[in-house]
Amino acid sequence: MQKLFDFFKENDHFARKCGIVLVEMEAGRAKAEMKIQPFHLNGAKVVHGGAIFTLADFVFAVAVNSRGKLALAINASVSFVNPATEGTLIAEAREISVNRKLANYEVTVKNEKGLLISQFQGTAYRKNGPPLQS
Amino acid sequence: MQKLFDFFKENDHFARKCGIVLVEMEAGRAKAEMKIQPFHLNGAKVVHGGAIFTLADFVFAVAVNSRGKLALAINASVSFVNPATEGTLIAEAREISVNRKLANYEVTVKNEKGLLISQFQGTAYRKNGPPLQS
Amino acid sequence: MQKLFDFFKENDHFARKCGIVLVEMEAGRAKAEMKIQPFHLNGAKVVHGGAIFTLADFVFAVAVNSRGKLALAINASVSFVNPATEGTLIAEAREISVNRKLANYEVTVKNEKGLLISQFQGTAYRKNGPPLQS
Amino acid sequence: MQKLFDFFKENDHFARKCGIVLVEMEAGRAKAEMKIQPFHLNGAKVVHGGAIFTLADFVFAVAVNSRGKLALAINASVSFVNPATEGTLIAEAREISVNRKLANYEVTVKNEKGLLISQFQGTAYRKNGPPLQS
Repeated sequence: MQKLFDFFKENDHFARKCGIVLVEMEAGRAKAEMKIQPFHLNGAKVVHGGAIFTLADFVFAVAVNSRGKLALAINASVSFVNPATEGTLIAEAREISVNRKLANYEVTVKNEKGLLISQFQGTAYRKNGPPLQS
Repeated sequence: MQKLFDFFKENDHFARKCGIVLVEMEAGRAKAEMKIQPFHLNGAKVVHGGAIFTLADFVFAVAVNSRGKLALAINASVSFVNPATEGTLIAEAREISVNRKLANYEVTVKNEKGLLISQFQGTAYRKNGPPLQS
Repeated sequence: MQKLFDFFKENDHFARKCGIVLVEMEAGRAKAEMKIQPFHLNGAKVVHGGAIFTLADFVFAVAVNSRGKLALAINASVSFVNPATEGTLIAEAREISVNRKLANYEVTVKNEKGLLISQFQGTAYRKNGPPLQS
Repeated sequence: MQKLFDFFKENDHFARKCGIVLVEMEAGRAKAEMKIQPFHLNGAKVVHGGAIFTLADFVFAVAVNSRGKLALAINASVSFVNPATEGTLIAEAREISVNRKLANYEVTVKNEKGLLISQFQGTAYRKNGPPLQS
C-alpha cells in the first residue's frame, strides 16, 4: 500500500500540476487536498469545475486502485453545490460497491470549514492486471 | 460576442494553465483545443480524466454563456471512451436545450484523427445577470 | 407534512401502478418500498432498471418537496450495482444540499437483506410555488 | 435480429406494463414509442420521470443487445428538459462507442411534435454470452 501511495504521489503529473497532495490511502478509501491558488480560478473568479473534478477523480483513482487490480474510470457524474474561492479543498473517496469487474465510488469535496463544494460519483472498470506501479 | 470570446480566452486562468485554447464561439456553440503535453498525463501515462473534463467543461461554459445571461454549471456527467496519449484534443459543445433558467449542453472530445475520447453532458443554471465580462 | 405524505401516497399514479408504497417522510428525507412482482422484470428476468429508477425518483421527489417549495427533477444519474429478482426493494433519500433554487439528493435502493441494488443522485429546481397538493 | 426484436417485444414485462412498443431495431440502434396514459402521470400531472427513464432505458437495452453479446446497464444519466402531458413519446437510441467490454449509448425522448422531453446517456457492460433470447 505504501508503494502505491508513493506511486500516486509522484507519478500523477496532472494532479501535481494542479497542486493536489495525497494525504491518506487505505483499502477502498483515499483523501487528498488542494490549496486554492490563483491558477485554479475560472473567468467567474471561482475555482474551475475542472480543478474540482480533477481533485475528486484523483482520490477516486487512488481508492479504486487500492483494491489490488488496475482500474480505469469509465464514467463519472459530478454536482457543483457551492462555489469555492479560497482556502484548501479536501476530497474523500469511499467505496459504494466493488465486484470482479466494476466498482463504484463516491467522493465529497469540502472546504476546510466542512462546507460541501461538490459531490462526485465514479464508476471504474477493473482490468486483469496489477495496479499501477513504477 | 467577440468581447466574450476574448474574455474567456484571457480570464479563465485554469483553462490557460491546462494549455486550452478557445478556437470558435457562436450562439450556443463553442470549440476549443488542448495540445497534449507531459503534464496532462496521469500515473497510467494517459491524459488525466480531469484534464479531459476541464477541456469539456470549458467549452460548455463558453457556449452556455454565449446565450446572453450569466450561467453556472450545476452538474455534469462524463464518459471516458478511449484513452488519449498524444496529439491534440478537440472539444465541441452543442446546445441540447435552453429555457429561462436552465440549459443542457453536450460536448464531444475527439483526438485529431476524429476518434471519440470522451462524451460529456452538462446542465447550467442561468442567473439574472449579464454574462461574464472584464 | 401529513397532508403532503397523503398527497404523494394517493396522487402519484405511476408510482402506484408500479406498486410503490411511501413509508416515511420528514423534512429532507423519505423512504418507500416496492415488493418485486413479475411485471417488474425485464427480458433478462431481473427487475427492470426503469422500475428501480422510478422507486428512487419517487423518494427523491417526496423528499425534495418536503422542503416547502414545489421542486422538479432536472436531472439524475443512477448506477446499477447488483441485480434484483425477488423480495422487497427499499429506497431512502437523503439531502446532500439545498439552496433557494436548487437541491441535490442521494438515494440508495437496497433489498430487504440490506444489499445495495442501486445508487441514485438527483438534482431538482425549486420553483416559487407551494409544494404539490390536492 | 428479428428473433431478438420479437424477444424484446414480448419478454420485457415492465416495458409492456408501461405501454411501451418497440418500433424499430437494427445494429446499434432502436426506436420505441409510449402513448401517454393517465397511469403515467405523477402528482404534478406530468409524465413521471420513471416512465420516461423506462422508455429510454428500454431502447438503450435493445440497441446494445443488438450488437451480439449480452449487455447489462451499469449506469445512466438523464436530463428532463420539458414536461410531457399528452400524446405519444418516441425514444431513439444511437451508439456513441462500443468495444469488447463496454458500450455507451445516447437516447433522445421526444413528443410527437419533435419537442425534446429528455436526453439520456447509458453505459453497458458486455458479457461473454449471447444476447437475450427465449
